[in-house]
Amino acid sequence: MADKKMILGMTLNSGYGNISGAWRAPEVDPGNYANIESNIRYAQAAERGGFAFLFTPDFPTVRGDVEFSGIQNIMEPMMALAAISQATSNIGFIATGSTTFQEPFNTARQFKALDAMSHGRAGWNAVTTSDSMVSANYGRPVADRAERYQRANEAIQIVQALWGSWEKDAWIKDQASGRFLDASKLRPVNLQGEHVASRGPLPIPPSEQGQPIIFTSGGPSPHLLELAGRYASGFIAEVWTIEEARAQRQMVRDAAERAGRNPDEIKYIPGLMTTVAPTVRAGLDRRLALSGDVIEARLPHVGALLGLQLDPSRYDQPLTEAQLRAAHASPMDPRSGIVLKVAREGWSPRDILAHGVIDFHPTTVGPAEVHADHLQEWLEAGAADGFWLSPDIYEDGVDAFVDEVVPELRRRGIFPEEYVGSTLRENLGVPAQYGLDPRVAGGTS
Amino acid sequence: MADKKMILGMTLNSGYGNISGAWRAPEVDPGNYANIESNIRYAQAAERGGFAFLFTPDFPTVRGDVEFSGIQNIMEPMMALAAISQATSNIGFIATGSTTFQEPFNTARQFKALDAMSHGRAGWNAVTTSDSMVSANYGRPVADRAERYQRANEAIQIVQALWGSWEKDAWIKDQASGRFLDASKLRPVNLQGEHVASRGPLPIPPSEQGQPIIFTSGGPSPHLLELAGRYASGFIAEVWTIEEARAQRQMVRDAAERAGRNPDEIKYIPGLMTTVAPTVRAGLDRRLALSGDVIEARLPHVGALLGLQLDPSRYDQPLTEAQLRAAHASPMDPRSGIVLKVAREGWSPRDILAHGVIDFHPTTVGPAEVHADHLQEWLEAGAADGFWLSPDIYEDGVDAFVDEVVPELRRRGIFPEEYVGSTLRENLGVPAQYGLDPRVAGGTS
Ligand SMILES: Cc1cc2nc3c(=O)[nH]c(=O)nc-3n(C[C@H](O)[C@H](O)[C@H](O)COP(=O)(O)O)c2cc1C
Ligand SMILES: Cc1cc2nc3c(=O)[nH]c(=O)nc-3n(C[C@H](O)[C@H](O)[C@H](O)COP(=O)(O)O)c2cc1C
Repeated sequence: MADKKMILGMTLNSGYGNISGAWRAPEVDPGNYANIESNIRYAQAAERGGFAFLFTPDFPTVRGDVEFSGIQNIMEPMMALAAISQATSNIGFIATGSTTFQEPFNTARQFKALDAMSHGRAGWNAVTTSDSMVSANYGRPVADRAERYQRANEAIQIVQALWGSWEKDAWIKDQASGRFLDASKLRPVNLQGEHVASRGPLPIPPSEQGQPIIFTSGGPSPHLLELAGRYASGFIAEVWTIEEARAQRQMVRDAAERAGRNPDEIKYIPGLMTTVAPTVRAGLDRRLALSGDVIEARLPHVGALLGLQLDPSRYDQPLTEAQLRAAHASPMDPRSGIVLKVAREGWSPRDILAHGVIDFHPTTVGPAEVHADHLQEWLEAGAADGFWLSPDIYEDGVDAFVDEVVPELRRRGIFPEEYVGSTLRENLGVPAQYGLDPRVAGGTS
Repeated sequence: MADKKMILGMTLNSGYGNISGAWRAPEVDPGNYANIESNIRYAQAAERGGFAFLFTPDFPTVRGDVEFSGIQNIMEPMMALAAISQATSNIGFIATGSTTFQEPFNTARQFKALDAMSHGRAGWNAVTTSDSMVSANYGRPVADRAERYQRANEAIQIVQALWGSWEKDAWIKDQASGRFLDASKLRPVNLQGEHVASRGPLPIPPSEQGQPIIFTSGGPSPHLLELAGRYASGFIAEVWTIEEARAQRQMVRDAAERAGRNPDEIKYIPGLMTTVAPTVRAGLDRRLALSGDVIEARLPHVGALLGLQLDPSRYDQPLTEAQLRAAHASPMDPRSGIVLKVAREGWSPRDILAHGVIDFHPTTVGPAEVHADHLQEWLEAGAADGFWLSPDIYEDGVDAFVDEVVPELRRRGIFPEEYVGSTLRENLGVPAQYGLDPRVAGGTS
């Protein structure tokens, strides 16, 4: 454990950031959503900080309160990453792609093309896409979980088999002898599932890492765990506490063992939202300036999470001694323990919310040590192999993390001094893969 | 007619070229297929020459005699063009995408993302994909033409409706007032066809040209003509003679009129393969050096095309007077007239084939005037609105065309002196399109 180093990834989305109102920050160009140039800049900043990968979540629809809060999703992950691949040289790409709403041959081809174009830096976050707004865009209802995961298993097997359909030395390209490739080393796939099928081979040679890797993400349903155990090299998680994360990491590792794999082959990667600032107070103010209205609307929740009746006229004052004594964290909501902890530090209800305590991820606010402490604690508790970070505002939040937190992590010896290599597999510590994976060779039917 | 100017497009494929054996040319890196950098270089060369668009044909499979002749297809068109879009600023992109093997929502999204990323330079070559090797990669048999075109009509209507689903001024992005967009100006599509359906809207704003344009390509079946007449702004053709091209162009224009459109809204664009060289002899030698073996194997066809028995021992000598008198072009094969014309110029059977007379397109070989004469003759005969060019070898063939032929075309006043604008629609002379096309608004059912 002593010299275990963490993997860091960073989300990329709309070009603004991950707190509500990020698009309104004065340093942000509100046109960034349609300007790939902004995401290229953030990718380069993350690469400067030694991040192993960029992660693009993907919900292909117009979601949420876009009228005021802006858009959260990237325009289109594969096109964006193709562009970013040409402006970077070490950072990898974990792009979300749906097993339900994409043809496996197209998925295999685009990810392998990205892998070739980036010289071995591609990975696929394979998700079943259960959002009904998304499925309507494909003219279909949401299938039940069993059917979605049946198709997902078939799709991943086909995609991996297509990726492996050129043997390592199939591509001869010898100008002198005139032999371009050895067709006997291109293997058809011939997989026929219940939902999807493909013949192959895929017309793309192995990359510097052989082929892309598979990630998945979600809540730990038995279906998802089984899928992760079989195929995934990484598991993107959303958990609130160390206890939750340790338990979930163990479930994921157990699933890998049940599939006959070494549990160290699957990296468990929970999320963290970051606001880097000279002081905690300055960080809270940065968050309040943009998300103040959202926080205002949520103030009534603080009392509920602590089992208290709070007086709205005192939302800007710390809780009283009596309130703190009466407060208790609900065992049903993992976030309420964090609310209580922050309340005990003496923050007002408004500042408690500004700590991001009920946002989508755990949040760290303040100078480098605050972030480094959180990351180190989770790493050393066996709650994570790495983290996917969601900076509050990309425009300056990535540089701040890279310039302030990364050096602190390196001082503590828990983050690599430089890239291990130039492929995603090298930087994640996952072996290269050429040809068919033995787990896939059996076929889907 | 006097000041009609031609549109030029250029194919992009594997990174080698369009003659057999191009991958073996000494100036070519045989690894180019997997190195997007080569296609970026060729795209930049074409842009320097004022080309309006790059055209990526697409057959997603391993086709042909790849063992020796190399690969003809680009690795993946959309990913490649996303990368190229960031390294160019005026040239447009006509990417082939299948109406049969892609989900309309994914097609709409990726093309519109390319359109946004390139600031208004995207177009979709919508084809039904009738190749059985391709359909096997999607686990399906080739559907009959009626079904393929039914789905194509539905898919194009859905894609165009999705492209138009943001009104021009929907995206407010006003940081001061906090309004990101006017959700009342995002319209669901709600199209339900027999094969495909979508709700929408698409989460991508209009580009500098509003939305991408539609092209199509193929032989002029009634189904394809009807589709082209309804939706296409460009028709990519493969024809051998001026007569064929004039007749086909008229068919395409008539189809547009039947659909209630101005026939000038659809550009008819036949192909040409080019070998630019100081002399015709030098050009033939360049072609023989790489395609000599293919030409050797085809020599027996020359006699058949002329209705003659040719003596293999005289393949390197011009035809005799008696042979030329006896020779006649078959009315069944448009290429035989070209064979006869070249034979009468005094070339040997081997050199006749080196002229590319039975390749996929008409071919021009030699100095600038040869190419300019062909292009001018077709343009002025009403056989073309523009041309898609297939250079013999990309590595030096694009620069040669740009440096030698383009200035000659400009001297003759038949090619624009510079880009009309920075969007594809401007450079093709097609009006911008925002919101729903009235032809689409009716729905598919
Ligand atoms: C951290 C995290 C990231 C996710 N990213 C995506 C995503 O980008 N796209 C998506 O469709 N679903 C995403 N999901 C949703 C899951 O893939 C899955 O649909 C959800 O957990 C329900 O899955 P189930 O049917 O297994 O319960 C994500 C979930 C989590 C926890
Ligand atoms: C110049 C030209 C380019 C074409 N490009 C493609 C292509 O890139 N991909 C494809 O699947 N078909 C392509 N086609 C084939 C046509 O789209 C079509 O499948 C073929 O003409 C048969 O269509 P039909 O069913 O209308 O007869 C091309 C055809 C021509 C003439």
